[in-house]
Amino acid sequence: MEEMNEQKFMSFFKGCIPSSFSQDTHQQAQKILTLFAKVRENLCQELQKIEHSAKFKLEPWKRAEGGGGVTAVMTEGAVFSKTIVDVSVITGKLPMAAVKHLHEAAKITTSLDETFTEDDNFLGISFSCIVHANNPHIPTGHFNLRIVVMKPRKGHEVGWYGGVMDINPSYLVREDATHFHKTLRDMCNKHNPSHYTNFKKWCDEYFFNPHRGETRGLGGIFFDNLPSKEKKNYAFLVSCAESFVPAYLPILKKHMHDTSTVQEKAWKQIRNARYIEFNLMHDQGMKFGFQLPGFRKETLFATLPPTASWGYKSDPKPGSKENDLVRVLRCPQKWA
Amino acid sequence: MEEMNEQKFMSFFKGCIPSSFSQDTHQQAQKILTLFAKVRENLCQELQKIEHSAKFKLEPWKRAEGGGGVTAVMTEGAVFSKTIVDVSVITGKLPMAAVKHLHEAAKITTSLDETFTEDDNFLGISFSCIVHANNPHIPTGHFNLRIVVMKPRKGHEVGWYGGVMDINPSYLVREDATHFHKTLRDMCNKHNPSHYTNFKKWCDEYFFNPHRGETRGLGGIFFDNLPSKEKKNYAFLVSCAESFVPAYLPILKKHMHDTSTVQEKAWKQIRNARYIEFNLMHDQGMKFGFQLPGFRKETLFATLPPTASWGYKSDPKPGSKENDLVRVLRCPQKWA
Repeated sequence: MEEMNEQKFMSFFKGCIPSSFSQDTHQQAQKILTLFAKVRENLCQELQKIEHSAKFKLEPWKRAEGGGGVTAVMTEGAVFSKTIVDVSVITGKLPMAAVKHLHEAAKITTSLDETFTEDDNFLGISFSCIVHANNPHIPTGHFNLRIVVMKPRKGHEVGWYGGVMDINPSYLVREDATHFHKTLRDMCNKHNPSHYTNFKKWCDEYFFNPHRGETRGLGGIFFDNLPSKEKKNYAFLVSCAESFVPAYLPILKKHMHDTSTVQEKAWKQIRNARYIEFNLMHDQGMKFGFQLPGFRKETLFATLPPTASWGYKSDPKPGSKENDLVRVLRCPQKWA
Repeated sequence: MEEMNEQKFMSFFKGCIPSSFSQDTHQQAQKILTLFAKVRENLCQELQKIEHSAKFKLEPWKRAEGGGGVTAVMTEGAVFSKTIVDVSVITGKLPMAAVKHLHEAAKITTSLDETFTEDDNFLGISFSCIVHANNPHIPTGHFNLRIVVMKPRKGHEVGWYGGVMDINPSYLVREDATHFHKTLRDMCNKHNPSHYTNFKKWCDEYFFNPHRGETRGLGGIFFDNLPSKEKKNYAFLVSCAESFVPAYLPILKKHMHDTSTVQEKAWKQIRNARYIEFNLMHDQGMKFGFQLPGFRKETLFATLPPTASWGYKSDPKPGSKENDLVRVLRCPQKWA
């Protein structure tokens, strides 16, 4: 991949925060961008070390309405079928549909709710990584961190953090689920004794696919609406940024040489279809992206698995190992 | 396939219309069911004649909350990848979300709009056929006819017809589009000189996929909210029922022995993905189905193509024959 080290990255985004935002927000945006520059560089390197048959393709892009992004995508590898590492910055006014959406998604309190309109200035900085692998024994990994700042014409700027980390296996390996959740639990516990419990629950609820009666995967943590003016929340964000590699990569590496049968590969395609159903029908990030004029759609669609199948009557048989997974997706468990 | 002739079909649905509906509605429901019995039997036979490597699988099902269906599905054939012919009957109360949805979908006038609540009795009888073929030169064919009757606790029963017929090719063959649209235009003109113009426009608007800036396919006709108490509208429904075979099957048969390249097969998978995006994100029928407690989800998902791919940056190159299609999808044309 063409290099995009921290310096080049910061230079690409230089001047992208509108001057209408306060000095505090400018400083905070620089801090977050620096954090995301490090995270993306590290993650691209870690993933590239694993993959020898494909390379990340780097595509920086500008958004005419304000902002832009640095999208790195790797496709058709020996290990990875499609993997994206992206940082996007969105600035400017939001259409009303997106403002409403933001409120719903963030479950913002009523007092804040009434403050925002489509006349407000918006700043969103978002880091995302989605890892889709060929091997049906490697779970899909998903990781997002973001800051949102709203600047009403009258009133103070309000900013908050959100994020998510979850795994989506095709087969249930209890030790993997336990490792992933324990890593996140231990990280959360350094900050707040209720974070893991709350954010694990939120994650299970968020990824529930009602028309299937099952969650997308085995969850992890999901949080939103953590006030960015509180220093402890930034410290939590930094810890999250450092946790995806130790939580997910050992699982990926453990299974990358697993052999798989035709049936296992077919089941993986069915699980990919369920993943796509969730993302197209329910995922807040996708919906928000679609509502943003000028948002790069290739970046949004790069988050989906590259192939999927919708077989007729694809529910697994009772007692099968495919059904072992579905049973847990229908009734989320305690893993840590 | 196990036989499901008109007699067995009528016997399966016997007594499924709740006694709370008027005698008129009962008679109308019988008439529509008899029509749909003939249409489905004929269509299953016509499609089975074409396919020698797979057979329709017949699955009658009952809905605990009221109604049921007769689903016939053929998968993994030499010609057809997945094809469904279905008649569903839904009766009983609707959840409020579905009532709201019905209003939006049918663009019902405000005066009617205020009449319906979740206390009303609902009757829906729907016929659907979706033909997905393996050959990238065969367009996906889609055909639906339905009657909806709402019986408010106070006030009169209100019933209306709706329907749609459209084709979704991966490659543009102008003569095919012209044949399909001319067949529908000529049929419409026997009933009302403005039907084709209005319903062709409605179809283009309905199948617009905003996040792609393109329609799902080359359209056809889409109509809704045609009062079922007017005899002329039933006559139109019967004509529609007779038109899918002459409009679509000649196109299917013309291309079933076409040779295709690896690139053409890959493009078909990309088009399948766009079809799935539309159906999961925008299709009113899918949304309505998901909102109905107890609706058979296997029947809903049988409408999707069996496989699809989301390549990174899959938009075709300017000047390519793939792009010839996309240009028309971005700017719907007059075909008849």
